[in-house]
Amino acid sequence: VITATDISRAASRIEDWTVRTPLLPCPRLSESLGVDVALKAENLQHTGSFKPRGVFNALLARRERGATIAGVAAFSAGNHAMAAAYAGRALGLPTVVCMPPHAVVTKIEAVRRLGGEVILTDDLLGTCREVAAQRGYDLLHPFDDPDVIAGQATVGAEIVASGFAPHLILVPVGGGGLISGIAAAVKHARPGTRIVGIEPVTANAMTHALRAGVAGPLPNRPQSMADGLTAPFAGDLAFEYVTSLVESIVEVDEESIRTAWWEMLDQTKLLLEPSAAVGLAALRNGLIEVRPGVRVVFVISGGNTSPAALATLTLP
Amino acid sequence: VITATDISRAASRIEDWTVRTPLLPCPRLSESLGVDVALKAENLQHTGSFKPRGVFNALLARRERGATIAGVAAFSAGNHAMAAAYAGRALGLPTVVCMPPHAVVTKIEAVRRLGGEVILTDDLLGTCREVAAQRGYDLLHPFDDPDVIAGQATVGAEIVASGFAPHLILVPVGGGGLISGIAAAVKHARPGTRIVGIEPVTANAMTHALRAGVAGPLPNRPQSMADGLTAPFAGDLAFEYVTSLVESIVEVDEESIRTAWWEMLDQTKLLLEPSAAVGLAALRNGLIEVRPGVRVVFVISGGNTSPAALATLTLP
Repeated sequence: VITATDISRAASRIEDWTVRTPLLPCPRLSESLGVDVALKAENLQHTGSFKPRGVFNALLARRERGATIAGVAAFSAGNHAMAAAYAGRALGLPTVVCMPPHAVVTKIEAVRRLGGEVILTDDLLGTCREVAAQRGYDLLHPFDDPDVIAGQATVGAEIVASGFAPHLILVPVGGGGLISGIAAAVKHARPGTRIVGIEPVTANAMTHALRAGVAGPLPNRPQSMADGLTAPFAGDLAFEYVTSLVESIVEVDEESIRTAWWEMLDQTKLLLEPSAAVGLAALRNGLIEVRPGVRVVFVISGGNTSPAALATLTLP
Repeated sequence: VITATDISRAASRIEDWTVRTPLLPCPRLSESLGVDVALKAENLQHTGSFKPRGVFNALLARRERGATIAGVAAFSAGNHAMAAAYAGRALGLPTVVCMPPHAVVTKIEAVRRLGGEVILTDDLLGTCREVAAQRGYDLLHPFDDPDVIAGQATVGAEIVASGFAPHLILVPVGGGGLISGIAAAVKHARPGTRIVGIEPVTANAMTHALRAGVAGPLPNRPQSMADGLTAPFAGDLAFEYVTSLVESIVEVDEESIRTAWWEMLDQTKLLLEPSAAVGLAALRNGLIEVRPGVRVVFVISGGNTSPAALATLTLP
């Protein structure tokens, strides 16, 4: 498990490259839920998600350890891809990103606009390894890397430093890197804080891992309107963090996510992606016990959505 | 013209009732425009717009002057209506709001949810005067009231206090109350700051007033996707403020507003209503001279929109 020192070093490393995002109070959601809500607004991070934290920390930590990085090879359907391209450009490193053929076109375009090369492939990890080996590039895993987790942990460190002192933190879960980092940072500083993860029932890699007792691939390709959470497997490291530091992982269905998405948009007035609405979906479904008046942080993991996705809000 | 003392008194009066909204940096918009952008996020204000500032200040100032307020009568198609109902509930005053029959259904429902009584009428001002007289309620004008303007001025005072020191502030214009308040606050403190107002070409009450040399009703009912800016006339007071303190009022067409709306949503990651996108529409159309590197504040006047409105973003 990463230490408090690892996390404070990560915070120093990425300070000049990332946004210290605000923790915003939300009176409307507080009133409607009967708890004291604060929003960790990672949608305001560079590239519109928390991902640059882990990417910058991993690349800068490797350089500190004496590595010469010739380029970056990453794989992702979306937010990690954009973060890798953004960090590659900022640090002067050529970046290639393996993306699935079904990836959202606007996300592919965003990677290219940031100077990243895109390879479309169904075998994300395999192709990425091959390209990295051929070109001598560094492979950058989206979540199963201790430096990436230490970078995401700065989200938790900032919540701790805010003075809000939450009783409960709700974290969307894909591969598990974000919740691992947040849990590590928060449990070091305030062990009594409850950390709960939420994933779509149709993209439940972590629940699958918890049932099996080990992280492994989902039997079917995960699909969800919360596209940021459709990792095909949970990280091995993340599985360890979740097992030891997280209270529970709960699952929400698509209709609950869609309803919660509009409620979050309307009540927070932040543009957030469906992935960032799963916490509210879980609360509205009564899946997480919450006493009146407690302080709750919603981690707004990202804000990358499209007009076409927003148009689905009008579906009956 | 309201004084610096009027504005600081307004700020003290409304402090416990309103949100001191953040002034958020926006790296993406800064990069794409080549200027240093900050967003005054009034979409995060109670009821999702700046309107409660003026409403609370007007009601509390009247009480300070010894008035006994039996109830509040207001007229508005949207944001002022919600603010009046919200403030009425908070201050324990019955509130009736005259709204046009074509008002957005979700806004009518929002007023009712806040405990306001809604009267649908085409003659907003006439009916409101009548109801106020019948019931002995206080009529609360949405913009043509010095206390309302002093309340909106706290937006400007907070921008001044932020230390951002903008060269230019872009303000959406409907009846003119917001730009009047902001101009008064900013010009007192930093006379060199440029204040520019923007209104839809199809809802241009202030341009109409400037051409005529006097505030008067528009010949046709104004219509725009920027529904918050469709005041049928500019305020007499606002006309005076704009004439003396504002650099210019520029007009933008509907297609420019729609394009700028998505760009603002995507780049700011704030949920904002079309009215709050007119500043970017004006910049993109080259209507406002801006030197590279200057500091620009976009006043995000509100964030009240609907799934149906968001679905129009997919139109070709």
